[in-house]
Amino acid sequence: MNDRLLRACRREPVDRTPVWMMRQAGRYLKEYRDIRQKIAFLDLCKNTDLAAEVSLQPYRIVGVDAVIFFSDILIPVEAMGVSVTLTDKGPEIDDPIRSQRHVDKLRTPDPALETPFVGSILKRLRQELDGKVPLIGFAGAPWTLASYMIEGGGSKSFAEIKGMAFRDPKLLHSLLDKLASTVSAYLLYQIESGAQVVQLFDTWAGELNRQDYEEFALPYTQKIFDNIGRRVPRILYINGCSNILESMCASGADVLSVDWRISIAEARRRTGDRVALQGNLDPCLLLGARERMLAKAAEILQQAGPLGHILNLGHGILPPTPVENACAFIDFAKTFRH
Amino acid sequence: MNDRLLRACRREPVDRTPVWMMRQAGRYLKEYRDIRQKIAFLDLCKNTDLAAEVSLQPYRIVGVDAVIFFSDILIPVEAMGVSVTLTDKGPEIDDPIRSQRHVDKLRTPDPALETPFVGSILKRLRQELDGKVPLIGFAGAPWTLASYMIEGGGSKSFAEIKGMAFRDPKLLHSLLDKLASTVSAYLLYQIESGAQVVQLFDTWAGELNRQDYEEFALPYTQKIFDNIGRRVPRILYINGCSNILESMCASGADVLSVDWRISIAEARRRTGDRVALQGNLDPCLLLGARERMLAKAAEILQQAGPLGHILNLGHGILPPTPVENACAFIDFAKTFRH
Repeated sequence: MNDRLLRACRREPVDRTPVWMMRQAGRYLKEYRDIRQKIAFLDLCKNTDLAAEVSLQPYRIVGVDAVIFFSDILIPVEAMGVSVTLTDKGPEIDDPIRSQRHVDKLRTPDPALETPFVGSILKRLRQELDGKVPLIGFAGAPWTLASYMIEGGGSKSFAEIKGMAFRDPKLLHSLLDKLASTVSAYLLYQIESGAQVVQLFDTWAGELNRQDYEEFALPYTQKIFDNIGRRVPRILYINGCSNILESMCASGADVLSVDWRISIAEARRRTGDRVALQGNLDPCLLLGARERMLAKAAEILQQAGPLGHILNLGHGILPPTPVENACAFIDFAKTFRH
Repeated sequence: MNDRLLRACRREPVDRTPVWMMRQAGRYLKEYRDIRQKIAFLDLCKNTDLAAEVSLQPYRIVGVDAVIFFSDILIPVEAMGVSVTLTDKGPEIDDPIRSQRHVDKLRTPDPALETPFVGSILKRLRQELDGKVPLIGFAGAPWTLASYMIEGGGSKSFAEIKGMAFRDPKLLHSLLDKLASTVSAYLLYQIESGAQVVQLFDTWAGELNRQDYEEFALPYTQKIFDNIGRRVPRILYINGCSNILESMCASGADVLSVDWRISIAEARRRTGDRVALQGNLDPCLLLGARERMLAKAAEILQQAGPLGHILNLGHGILPPTPVENACAFIDFAKTFRH
């Protein structure tokens, strides 16, 4: 039983630092691409057999210390009554949210009824894993989900959601609050179904300065962590977190997952021993020379020290990553000793 | 003669803080859109009469304290022999750079011969302004220009340029070095043609952590600032600068232009009195309620204090900005007293 990840989340001693990769079930794996040729992305998320299969691929092929179930952060958004399309260029949402009437129309879905496949996938994975490595559940955080729902997809300037925040904050808060309830129930359902850790992705909250983060993102992350309680460790990921790291500590997260732009040494200095840290190799290093990648991985491991660190990337692994490089990264982590 | 901006760059006393807006000659102005209906973007950059006209529009309509000449950072890249198309979705570059042979083929253009319209526009603007407000020249910094040239356009992950940086740094350095020479000559030509301040846009250098910034971006910014010398104040802008602010200080810039994610108070604390600061209102605030925007502008002015500050946005003004809000921002800055 490899429980290093759970121990690292709780800042308990481990024989070596656990390692996994965000978006580890993905296009860099030939075995994943083979399955995706036969099935659309959202259909794959809803197919218990195939979703469980692709979730397990990185464990079997790359040898990671944890399995994250295959899904998409927009699954609960779709269950709220929003039409979601996932294209190769990212998500597209018809009829982006712009009015109170539109927010009021959104359902707060019962995850067991509306997204039962999520429970099935997690249960299947717990069976298959049989305690070998921990199973990670996840969800998008309200600010990040709202950004897709209001922008109608990905964005560069986040002008629509921020325009709403600064023009009609009450409207945005009503959406964020509904999302916080939805995500709380969704994560509780994942935990009941077998998730042993949960990661909340507030990927785009790093677009906000600290004041705005504390007004529009943090309260909803806190609400979710309050609602799900302390039964499993909670990880919070934000891309571009260096401006809001101290505020993230106030979220109640057990682990802060940080992007590659900040050094782990600085993240440690600024967070003290309040939280464990996850990260933070630049995923682009896996596209480069082996030596440079491993030197940086070693630096991260050294700066983080042996306690309360989960080695990971600073953002999701990129589709063009050579699988040998992903394996070399994981193998290196497994042989590294403090 | 309004020389507040020049005085603020040199940290000399001013009666009030000067203010302008990045991308102030742009689509939020009806007068600009009227001209753009008749002429393509790159053609506008090369038309002395019309480029001078749109450069002056924000001075006449919004009342900014400085005029920046209308152009695009990819103008010198095109002069190097790269085929550039500017679409509504951003720049597109045919045949992205991937090899040493390709880098070697690039010219280091003589700006007076290859981009004479830049000199004409600047000279015209100095005449028209007749000393009323200072004239700003600008260029893209090597890392940012290289990112467009290697990615083939805008990017989310910067996987191509970073992949090259981490796989074949020598190749990337050869391109960056050629760009540094090109940009140095280009800015010197702008200064000779009448630019009284220059701003270097290293917009995407905030994607790098500090080590990588110091390896792939900073040396070329330093080289450019060394080459152009101290005859005019030099401003350095980076979006997402909070992780590399101290390194930016080492560039030799007189002014650091910071994005909205960091507070001006923190930027001051971390840079001391080594540099002046420019910024940093979130451009999305100009899409929101007047009260919130002005409260934040007041906070920025207060935190920055009276010396060595140029009020600006943290990134370019957004096309959907109501012109009344831009005017309200500028008017407020002009009435604010410390």
